[in-house]
Amino acid sequence: MTDTEPAAPVRETAEEIATMEVRGAATIASAAAEALAEQAEAAAASGETASDPAAFRASMRAAARTLRETRPTAVSLPNALRYVLQRMEGQTVDELRRSVVDASDAFVRQLDRAQDDLGQVGANRLADGDTVMTHCHSTDALACIEAAVEQGKSISAVVKETRPRQQGHITAEQLREAGVPVTLIVDSAARRYLDEVDHVVVGADSIAADGGVINKIGTSGLAVNARERGVPIMTAAQTIKLHPETLTGHTVEIEMRSESEVIDAESREQIGEIAVENPAFDVTPPRYMDAIVTEHGQFPPESIVALMRELFGEGAEEPWAEP
Amino acid sequence: MTDTEPAAPVRETAEEIATMEVRGAATIASAAAEALAEQAEAAAASGETASDPAAFRASMRAAARTLRETRPTAVSLPNALRYVLQRMEGQTVDELRRSVVDASDAFVRQLDRAQDDLGQVGANRLADGDTVMTHCHSTDALACIEAAVEQGKSISAVVKETRPRQQGHITAEQLREAGVPVTLIVDSAARRYLDEVDHVVVGADSIAADGGVINKIGTSGLAVNARERGVPIMTAAQTIKLHPETLTGHTVEIEMRSESEVIDAESREQIGEIAVENPAFDVTPPRYMDAIVTEHGQFPPESIVALMRELFGEGAEEPWAEP
Amino acid sequence: MTDTEPAAPVRETAEEIATMEVRGAATIASAAAEALAEQAEAAAASGETASDPAAFRASMRAAARTLRETRPTAVSLPNALRYVLQRMEGQTVDELRRSVVDASDAFVRQLDRAQDDLGQVGANRLADGDTVMTHCHSTDALACIEAAVEQGKSISAVVKETRPRQQGHITAEQLREAGVPVTLIVDSAARRYLDEVDHVVVGADSIAADGGVINKIGTSGLAVNARERGVPIMTAAQTIKLHPETLTGHTVEIEMRSESEVIDAESREQIGEIAVENPAFDVTPPRYMDAIVTEHGQFPPESIVALMRELFGEGAEEPWAEP
Amino acid sequence: MTDTEPAAPVRETAEEIATMEVRGAATIASAAAEALAEQAEAAAASGETASDPAAFRASMRAAARTLRETRPTAVSLPNALRYVLQRMEGQTVDELRRSVVDASDAFVRQLDRAQDDLGQVGANRLADGDTVMTHCHSTDALACIEAAVEQGKSISAVVKETRPRQQGHITAEQLREAGVPVTLIVDSAARRYLDEVDHVVVGADSIAADGGVINKIGTSGLAVNARERGVPIMTAAQTIKLHPETLTGHTVEIEMRSESEVIDAESREQIGEIAVENPAFDVTPPRYMDAIVTEHGQFPPESIVALMRELFGEGAEEPWAEP
Amino acid sequence: MTDTEPAAPVRETAEEIATMEVRGAATIASAAAEALAEQAEAAAASGETASDPAAFRASMRAAARTLRETRPTAVSLPNALRYVLQRMEGQTVDELRRSVVDASDAFVRQLDRAQDDLGQVGANRLADGDTVMTHCHSTDALACIEAAVEQGKSISAVVKETRPRQQGHITAEQLREAGVPVTLIVDSAARRYLDEVDHVVVGADSIAADGGVINKIGTSGLAVNARERGVPIMTAAQTIKLHPETLTGHTVEIEMRSESEVIDAESREQIGEIAVENPAFDVTPPRYMDAIVTEHGQFPPESIVALMRELFGEGAEEPWAEP
Amino acid sequence: MTDTEPAAPVRETAEEIATMEVRGAATIASAAAEALAEQAEAAAASGETASDPAAFRASMRAAARTLRETRPTAVSLPNALRYVLQRMEGQTVDELRRSVVDASDAFVRQLDRAQDDLGQVGANRLADGDTVMTHCHSTDALACIEAAVEQGKSISAVVKETRPRQQGHITAEQLREAGVPVTLIVDSAARRYLDEVDHVVVGADSIAADGGVINKIGTSGLAVNARERGVPIMTAAQTIKLHPETLTGHTVEIEMRSESEVIDAESREQIGEIAVENPAFDVTPPRYMDAIVTEHGQFPPESIVALMRELFGEGAEEPWAEP
Repeated sequence: MTDTEPAAPVRETAEEIATMEVRGAATIASAAAEALAEQAEAAAASGETASDPAAFRASMRAAARTLRETRPTAVSLPNALRYVLQRMEGQTVDELRRSVVDASDAFVRQLDRAQDDLGQVGANRLADGDTVMTHCHSTDALACIEAAVEQGKSISAVVKETRPRQQGHITAEQLREAGVPVTLIVDSAARRYLDEVDHVVVGADSIAADGGVINKIGTSGLAVNARERGVPIMTAAQTIKLHPETLTGHTVEIEMRSESEVIDAESREQIGEIAVENPAFDVTPPRYMDAIVTEHGQFPPESIVALMRELFGEGAEEPWAEP
Repeated sequence: MTDTEPAAPVRETAEEIATMEVRGAATIASAAAEALAEQAEAAAASGETASDPAAFRASMRAAARTLRETRPTAVSLPNALRYVLQRMEGQTVDELRRSVVDASDAFVRQLDRAQDDLGQVGANRLADGDTVMTHCHSTDALACIEAAVEQGKSISAVVKETRPRQQGHITAEQLREAGVPVTLIVDSAARRYLDEVDHVVVGADSIAADGGVINKIGTSGLAVNARERGVPIMTAAQTIKLHPETLTGHTVEIEMRSESEVIDAESREQIGEIAVENPAFDVTPPRYMDAIVTEHGQFPPESIVALMRELFGEGAEEPWAEP
Repeated sequence: MTDTEPAAPVRETAEEIATMEVRGAATIASAAAEALAEQAEAAAASGETASDPAAFRASMRAAARTLRETRPTAVSLPNALRYVLQRMEGQTVDELRRSVVDASDAFVRQLDRAQDDLGQVGANRLADGDTVMTHCHSTDALACIEAAVEQGKSISAVVKETRPRQQGHITAEQLREAGVPVTLIVDSAARRYLDEVDHVVVGADSIAADGGVINKIGTSGLAVNARERGVPIMTAAQTIKLHPETLTGHTVEIEMRSESEVIDAESREQIGEIAVENPAFDVTPPRYMDAIVTEHGQFPPESIVALMRELFGEGAEEPWAEP
Repeated sequence: MTDTEPAAPVRETAEEIATMEVRGAATIASAAAEALAEQAEAAAASGETASDPAAFRASMRAAARTLRETRPTAVSLPNALRYVLQRMEGQTVDELRRSVVDASDAFVRQLDRAQDDLGQVGANRLADGDTVMTHCHSTDALACIEAAVEQGKSISAVVKETRPRQQGHITAEQLREAGVPVTLIVDSAARRYLDEVDHVVVGADSIAADGGVINKIGTSGLAVNARERGVPIMTAAQTIKLHPETLTGHTVEIEMRSESEVIDAESREQIGEIAVENPAFDVTPPRYMDAIVTEHGQFPPESIVALMRELFGEGAEEPWAEP
Repeated sequence: MTDTEPAAPVRETAEEIATMEVRGAATIASAAAEALAEQAEAAAASGETASDPAAFRASMRAAARTLRETRPTAVSLPNALRYVLQRMEGQTVDELRRSVVDASDAFVRQLDRAQDDLGQVGANRLADGDTVMTHCHSTDALACIEAAVEQGKSISAVVKETRPRQQGHITAEQLREAGVPVTLIVDSAARRYLDEVDHVVVGADSIAADGGVINKIGTSGLAVNARERGVPIMTAAQTIKLHPETLTGHTVEIEMRSESEVIDAESREQIGEIAVENPAFDVTPPRYMDAIVTEHGQFPPESIVALMRELFGEGAEEPWAEP
Repeated sequence: MTDTEPAAPVRETAEEIATMEVRGAATIASAAAEALAEQAEAAAASGETASDPAAFRASMRAAARTLRETRPTAVSLPNALRYVLQRMEGQTVDELRRSVVDASDAFVRQLDRAQDDLGQVGANRLADGDTVMTHCHSTDALACIEAAVEQGKSISAVVKETRPRQQGHITAEQLREAGVPVTLIVDSAARRYLDEVDHVVVGADSIAADGGVINKIGTSGLAVNARERGVPIMTAAQTIKLHPETLTGHTVEIEMRSESEVIDAESREQIGEIAVENPAFDVTPPRYMDAIVTEHGQFPPESIVALMRELFGEGAEEPWAEP
């Protein structure tokens, strides 16, 4: 059986993702899911795929492959494709079409309110009067704190500046705007201030099937100290951050960023011949993290694999692959 | 019995310490010990103190008080005074004088070679091929690494930049000059690099009788991570850093420094109304520190109190006090 | 679409729950599930709901709401409602009716033998000759020990008295009646006796989605000591104790009980103006608990969320809510 | 309803398992699943079972019981039976037959490539240049290391000899043949070499629902040391090793082997009257194990119960039991 | 050489100690030291002992033996005898006499102000605004808190009732009288309240050379929880509590008290045939205790052996024994 | 000043040590101390050294150097020399002579009964009915167990065989002869049997100033497991095992022994090209060891440095060096 060319909307979306016209984990995931729905409508409307369920299925897989190849390292993209394709089922083209469209709709609908939903979950973990500590800048983490404020809770924050790029400044500003009293500290001061903190709240770049949380460099050291000081720590992350390849043991490549973020040229020259290393992320083992907060509720990190499999399948299979 | 006015050299030294003409822990301690020797010579040479042992003793205590009051928070100053006064003994003025002069000499002599001596001790703990991690800038810690290099060992270093003042840059430069290959990282990257590190070497601002190490902010968080990663950590500190008041349970006041070290005025204004806190030091509990390296050898932190008592007495008594 | 008034049996059950005529977690849950079955039969028998699947569904939701509102803080009640409503499915009223009745039957049937079933599971973890330590009084925990005895195992018990209400006395009496040799100790003696204990067995007031076990005050301190002494600890709890609101991050409110349980009036007056606090429960983090024993088998606490979702749904949705 | 005698293929397979003609966890499981498929074909072909779904079901259960009884302590055998019987569904004999045959096929197909699949998963956890430590001899663990080598990664190994039977010698030989540089050490040297190791990789005799890993004696002590040294440790195990009885709390009986493995007769006589104990396995608690690697992907040990339930059911029910 | 009969004052003191006319650790120690001084005066005044140093020494040893035998299990009594006898030195009877009298004076003088002195040391560890947690009733521990209040610090207290004898009520009353706001809790509530506590302060029944703290049952469990919650804990104990026999490895016998303290006769009868155990003390390992506060300053528990040896000798020798 | 040739007895002893005619840590130490006494007698009897204190001192140093050079890596030899030379004091040759002879006598006397004395100390830590676990073969450790038996305590033992040389067989035999019931296990079985063990008792090859215990390979792994299982562990070691060079930070070189101890030639050839490593010892950090038992009593490992300094001086100075 020969495959069918993806429909125009898929090609357009693929182009937009590839050229980074469409960017951001949620936006990419949403666009990909919608493109699959459009492909389903198109395939059901005309050609061989309109009458042959096998051809329809093949065209869906081809569309998914086209989308998948635009950004091989994105986490949210294959999640969107897996979510939709795994829910494709039926004996007839119409049933297949409907299952795809329904899955796409469900995915997009959940995604639209994912940050709000997880914000509520995270907020529920916080109590009136709590002081939270933040690391880096994460809109998911902020959503939890802001939702707590909206629930009428009085929350204060100790904000780590987060070298080298000082994203803590952005966090500080947004928290201040949300009416949260902020104390800014250097990263090294974290252990000292943990004694005054009730919860540490961080985001995630991605989350692995073994429960490891990949997040801004410094998170794992903070988590180890939080455990030592008896302070609970939670990760706020939408499920599109769950890293599908880790289901099969793959480790997440840690990006090394420019040394100019760490030291300016003048100081660099002053010091002379040294190496500068600037890893963007580190991995926090699940035993140092108390909860992962998602739009589907909270999970101990050791259980996130169950949610990954429920949403996106087992990982080994690639639902877009030729059978 | 009325007291005797301290001799001119004591008054001059006191003046120089008070005006910070004489500064630096070792320099102050040395000057104070020498001033006591000069006082002893002067008191033994003329006046009532030349013939009355009690008057001689009183004049020594008065001199010590004069010196003590110049800098109430310095650690090394009372250590010098305690070291000498506790070794003042004898029935005659001459015996007293000689004991003071001998104690002063011994103290100054040890001080002169303290950093070299502790450098050897610390170097002995390092093995050829080791990678060390440093925090902040400490000449005592550097003395250990440099002595290891002089022993012919090949040593590499991972240098934490040490926000907010980036003293890691100085450390990096000095290690590079000593022929040590350096990798500079932000503080938050420490846990990630600990897996490649054989020893963490830090200095100390002061050391408490309960084994706590007061050092640059971030040391305690680093120590907790080093233990979690299975990497030994040592503090290099001359014994003049042993904090005498902690013998009687006093805690060490942690200096809060200017927020301008943490954030520049422009960013500050951009963020708006927030607090910025900038503690200079933190306290590492003894259970996270493997050894304290001094010019008198290495000690588990839990044993440093024995050395403190041996060198400087029990702490409760103030040997310069009026009886 | 207008809703339909719940049938008489639902109204009666609601009344009985509200007036605490029906009480106890299992009894309430059972009554609620049965009321839903009766509602299904009634709704399928007459009126608009007999022919209109949407009306039938609406009437079921209304019945559930009525029942739900009788005891807003009960844990087992919403679990029963969720269990049944989530299994309501079908295209016709008859299919819907049958699914509700079947789900209700299944729920009640499991509930009837839940304690026996979990007793077997817990007993299987114990070995002949084991000594167990208990805290407070829990029929679920006792079921495990008694089942072990019935399996022919020789079991001894160290029973903590469990201040302030000394429920340990009840536990001691029931264990003695079951032929288990009992040693009664004060709560503070627990760590000393842990060296002679093979298993700690406790019950639960409720269990949270993050794996936290809410149980009688003192459980968490005992669990920390059990881990430190190398003694495994298990919680015996029927699944109606799984707290549905914690799926969405809610924390469990800890009841503060009367100070008269802690100190009698005379001693109180003797001491004078002090505060007395008497929290009923505490929360044991999952990392200090080895297993949760339920009628569906044993689970590491970090996995209990998977069972919660399987039995009662995701938690965010309220199946009784107006669509 | 009377039961039906199992068909000839089942009786033959049962005989072969009982006489250990068929042996090895995977071979037994495969044979059992195939026997059920043959029983389904036979039952659907003739007799009462060909037309009566209830009789067909009963005959399947009887066949399963016959197979089950051949080796009461085998782990893989009941897993195979559970896998197939739980997937038996349908209204007609033909539907039932097909569901059984499909489940049997799926089971055997997965089993055939399970070691390869888990080898890939385990290999994905390893990085180029890693040194692994092994304990005992496990083809599942070796599959991970060998797959890593096939992925082009350079891997070295520290091989514990694994007293008393020195299976480490076999591991050493096979790794050497796979091109992996090997350093052989006595078991007691493990902690010393852990500082040079990136991953510990072990197999499993069986895995319990509470996340405990039953493996060659010494694994738990190694795991505790690996955690203390900060080295991750993984268990490689096909899912047929998941111990179904542990779902209901049963503990795994640890085999005691001959003392002649520990000490030869001459030394024994020289020493005189002592006891020698030789347990074959020990249990590693989940908190000391980082991941369990299976053909269905990797899991934190605390989540393996979810996979067990997905594959083999809840455990309390025995799908072969008379209803 | 024949020994000399102890002088009348020694015999009287021995009688008073034996009959418990003189009681309490400090009172006994003081009386014993004074008796030795009186013996020295008497022995130097007349008889063979007045001129023969050996006879004088023998008479001192005999006096010590007489005193020692009055209470074989008291801790403070041998400490007093050891302190004085070890400082007996000189060539002449007069020198010997003076050394004994001086040592006795010094011992009694230190003892008189020991509680005040250690109270200052302990108070120095507390900060203004701190909340402390107490266990049982200890005047040494109270001295620390009261001294802090006298230093002008605002201190609050969480007081554990301390079953079975509720000595916490006495502590609560005394703290209230000292102006310290008190919250009384049952022992089991400790872990929950540790999050609001800055320091745990306990006393000691005795302290062992290996750093173990023998104190009221429940102390060790509290200490383990304090470490887990990141809260420092200190023991306040005068040096007469240092247990001399533990220097040679002896363990401290733990007193088992009456079961009537645990349960009243009526409840006992209601429950039926059970055992009740009521150990008075437990042992807290040094690794869970942050500091031991004495009148000679603070010490990490691991260093207390150095103080024991300094004050009371090596332990193996018995300075009162016949040579 | 020219130095004086060591007397004949010193030269003879040096020869005997160098040729290993005199061997064993205690025998060497004893011989060296005695040789110094003989040198003192000889030097005081004739020549320049008989009248010139400085010459006498120089001759003593020269004798010590001669002895020291015979075995540069022995631990007990420099300890003996340090002990004696540091106690050499006086203004006249006669005083010097006497001080040397007295110190030598004291050292030898203590050494003679050191094992008995430490055996008593270790035995005091054991209770009637205890089960101990041993590793390797240590006469100091055995002395503790045997002394406990002689004290009338009933002691059982779990004996690790201690690969590669199975010294556990010797331990088993000697314990059996002492009437101790023995269970022999492979090293890997240790964690499993720790649950039945009350104390682990090991010896030491040497002990470092930082509290590290250098002992037979496997000790550190055992200690980590003992802590994890909540079982106390003690090291029995005479003070001649205290390693003087570690006072100045030196680490102890770990001997690598022949691979033929690990694997026989035939197995070696069968396996092919692999490396075999066989380190004789490892280092147990003080935090995993509860006590060091010596003839001077028991010490927490963190305090052993105080005893080292008391007995043998500060370490940096070499009392035999030319001034």
